[in-house]
Amino acid sequence: MLKNLPPRVREEEYINIDPIQRGGVLTLEARKALIVYGDGYSLCDYCFSPFRLDYIKKPNIADFIQELAEFIGMETVRIVRGARDGFRTVMNALLNKGDIVLVSSLSHYSLCLAIEASKGRWKEIPTDEKNIITPDAVAEKIEETKEKEGTLPKLVAIHHVDYQFGNLHPVREIAKVCHEYDIPFLLNGAYTVGIMPINGKEIGADFIVGSGHKSMAAPSPVGILATNEEFSKLILRSPKIEGDITGRKFGIKEVELLGCTVMGAPLIGLLASFPEVKERVKKWDEEIDKINYFTKNFLKIEGNKILSEMPRKHTLTRVDTRKSFDKIANNHKRKGYFLTDELKKRGIVGIFPGSTKIWKLNTYGLTWKQIKYLSDVFIEIAEKYGIFVEN
Amino acid sequence: MLKNLPPRVREEEYINIDPIQRGGVLTLEARKALIVYGDGYSLCDYCFSPFRLDYIKKPNIADFIQELAEFIGMETVRIVRGARDGFRTVMNALLNKGDIVLVSSLSHYSLCLAIEASKGRWKEIPTDEKNIITPDAVAEKIEETKEKEGTLPKLVAIHHVDYQFGNLHPVREIAKVCHEYDIPFLLNGAYTVGIMPINGKEIGADFIVGSGHKSMAAPSPVGILATNEEFSKLILRSPKIEGDITGRKFGIKEVELLGCTVMGAPLIGLLASFPEVKERVKKWDEEIDKINYFTKNFLKIEGNKILSEMPRKHTLTRVDTRKSFDKIANNHKRKGYFLTDELKKRGIVGIFPGSTKIWKLNTYGLTWKQIKYLSDVFIEIAEKYGIFVEN
Repeated sequence: MLKNLPPRVREEEYINIDPIQRGGVLTLEARKALIVYGDGYSLCDYCFSPFRLDYIKKPNIADFIQELAEFIGMETVRIVRGARDGFRTVMNALLNKGDIVLVSSLSHYSLCLAIEASKGRWKEIPTDEKNIITPDAVAEKIEETKEKEGTLPKLVAIHHVDYQFGNLHPVREIAKVCHEYDIPFLLNGAYTVGIMPINGKEIGADFIVGSGHKSMAAPSPVGILATNEEFSKLILRSPKIEGDITGRKFGIKEVELLGCTVMGAPLIGLLASFPEVKERVKKWDEEIDKINYFTKNFLKIEGNKILSEMPRKHTLTRVDTRKSFDKIANNHKRKGYFLTDELKKRGIVGIFPGSTKIWKLNTYGLTWKQIKYLSDVFIEIAEKYGIFVEN
Repeated sequence: MLKNLPPRVREEEYINIDPIQRGGVLTLEARKALIVYGDGYSLCDYCFSPFRLDYIKKPNIADFIQELAEFIGMETVRIVRGARDGFRTVMNALLNKGDIVLVSSLSHYSLCLAIEASKGRWKEIPTDEKNIITPDAVAEKIEETKEKEGTLPKLVAIHHVDYQFGNLHPVREIAKVCHEYDIPFLLNGAYTVGIMPINGKEIGADFIVGSGHKSMAAPSPVGILATNEEFSKLILRSPKIEGDITGRKFGIKEVELLGCTVMGAPLIGLLASFPEVKERVKKWDEEIDKINYFTKNFLKIEGNKILSEMPRKHTLTRVDTRKSFDKIANNHKRKGYFLTDELKKRGIVGIFPGSTKIWKLNTYGLTWKQIKYLSDVFIEIAEKYGIFVEN
């Protein structure tokens, strides 16, 4: 079976518009770093007292962690084993059995699982008709929880940008509402940290969780968990139990993180990509221009709809082609795969195979040339199948 | 800072005897795989319904997981984010607040932290004078716990081979004792799974935790968590909570794992190395011959001691050079670093810098030529400094 490991050439031979992959494409520096730092404990070569990942100076993980905290305007940052590991770390530290966390009705499943795994319960805040979580909806759900459960939620955890529509939510105003009730606010930055500028202090986030493999050009699994000063004590606390026979204790280790977290490939990738990531967030406006260029052209195809908020504020975009490409699919022997085929023939991959109804794409990091080509390709396919296209 | 990322050439230019690194050195296949599967979500290209990592057929993760289970003689295996993530998964599923887990007095700190993070308590089982956890000691500690706490421990978690001495513990007999008390037994195979042959069924393990980056030639962080049939239901259970607004549920996802675990580099490395790992465990006897060849020669140096059990049953070995090299260090201007220097000059790295008292080394995977050279080097250094060496 393993002799048949297929070589992966998705980024080399195609334009990849996979909704979850764009922000995790490695930089050249990360690829180079992987070649030499692939081995399991390769980052531990120069791990000296006090023996903790974030103290290592060669490679300079210590400074990197500091720079990360500054980069997103938070007090402390720790490397975690993916965003979901960051969610769990917070939930495990914060929740008692049965405690309630409010999430968005668009929240990622991994956040819900982190809450349930930590013996908490999650309740959903509904979006408005534009698929946005409003501060009012947050306040209402807090009130409802108070009334129904006789207690306030322990935490509110909302995406900066959600994974379903790629909509930008008013997180600053949401944080304000939470703080009026004295409830901490966790910002899920899986689709924003490393992609667009973000300042946790300005937002008023108590926690920020980011994803290395989703938005910071790193291999999986790696993420970051940032806290403000108030909660760093809880999250980064030392273990308390001592050995009843040996008397040993593990004072320097952080119990919620289980000590060191990511000692190799994903962290070196995150670190090697970071200088480029810091620069790329400054060009976010241009990424927005590019997706809006694409949607403008995509909407020239009769029947096409954009289900995400317009104009686009993020590159992840949900589209509806039920009244265009899906009509063709209904009469095509390859059904919905006709669109996948036509795109692939033209060098485009990454939409869910067979989709012609409601599906997602992401243009993050594509060049203007690729964006224009991508826009043309959809029009070309539409025209080939006789769908009307505006001039 | 990142411009100064030092190139890592430890495996290319040196003989590396780092105690924790030998089993994690990548195979050539793993290095090749990393180059093309570095990107964050690269393993998700062909993730179709039911959308779970261990169902993916291209690359064939589904079959790989099955083969892993057969490889170690267990019912189910899941990929986790390192051995400590495996410990936590079990503890979180099994423990209620205050529950006691018995560990070895030689246990790794990450096991203790996983218990404390899961709101449990850990108590130590003492080793005998040979630094072995005996079945009797386990039984005594169980009895002591019953008496002092009025309840049985919820779990016993013991290393197959411990990280301090590299001693092989009688885990089959320990498992038997645990089962007499109806207490489940977790085998910490961080130093054995992927290194030596192991059969969980024969041992009687309820859980086995293994480490990809420690012993399976994989990048960090990745590990495996295996269960027998009885406990697979608990560990792999589905989430129960449903969205109060959307009604959504995440039936296929496994709540304790938080859904998918390791979607990229470390898993592809584990997978690519696996055919070689399966072969290498068959050559374990030769690895034992090699470390015993080394220790025989090392003991020719007057004052040298081996603190691990003899003859060696594992390549990880703890030595005592207080009456040999440390005497030289006391009068050397570089102090203990003289030994590090002399070794490095001869192409040997990986012992903790400056160590001349009690320290560890690991010869796993070195060739006979390297083993002979390594043995000669220590003798050569001893002779250079006038330490008596037997013929």
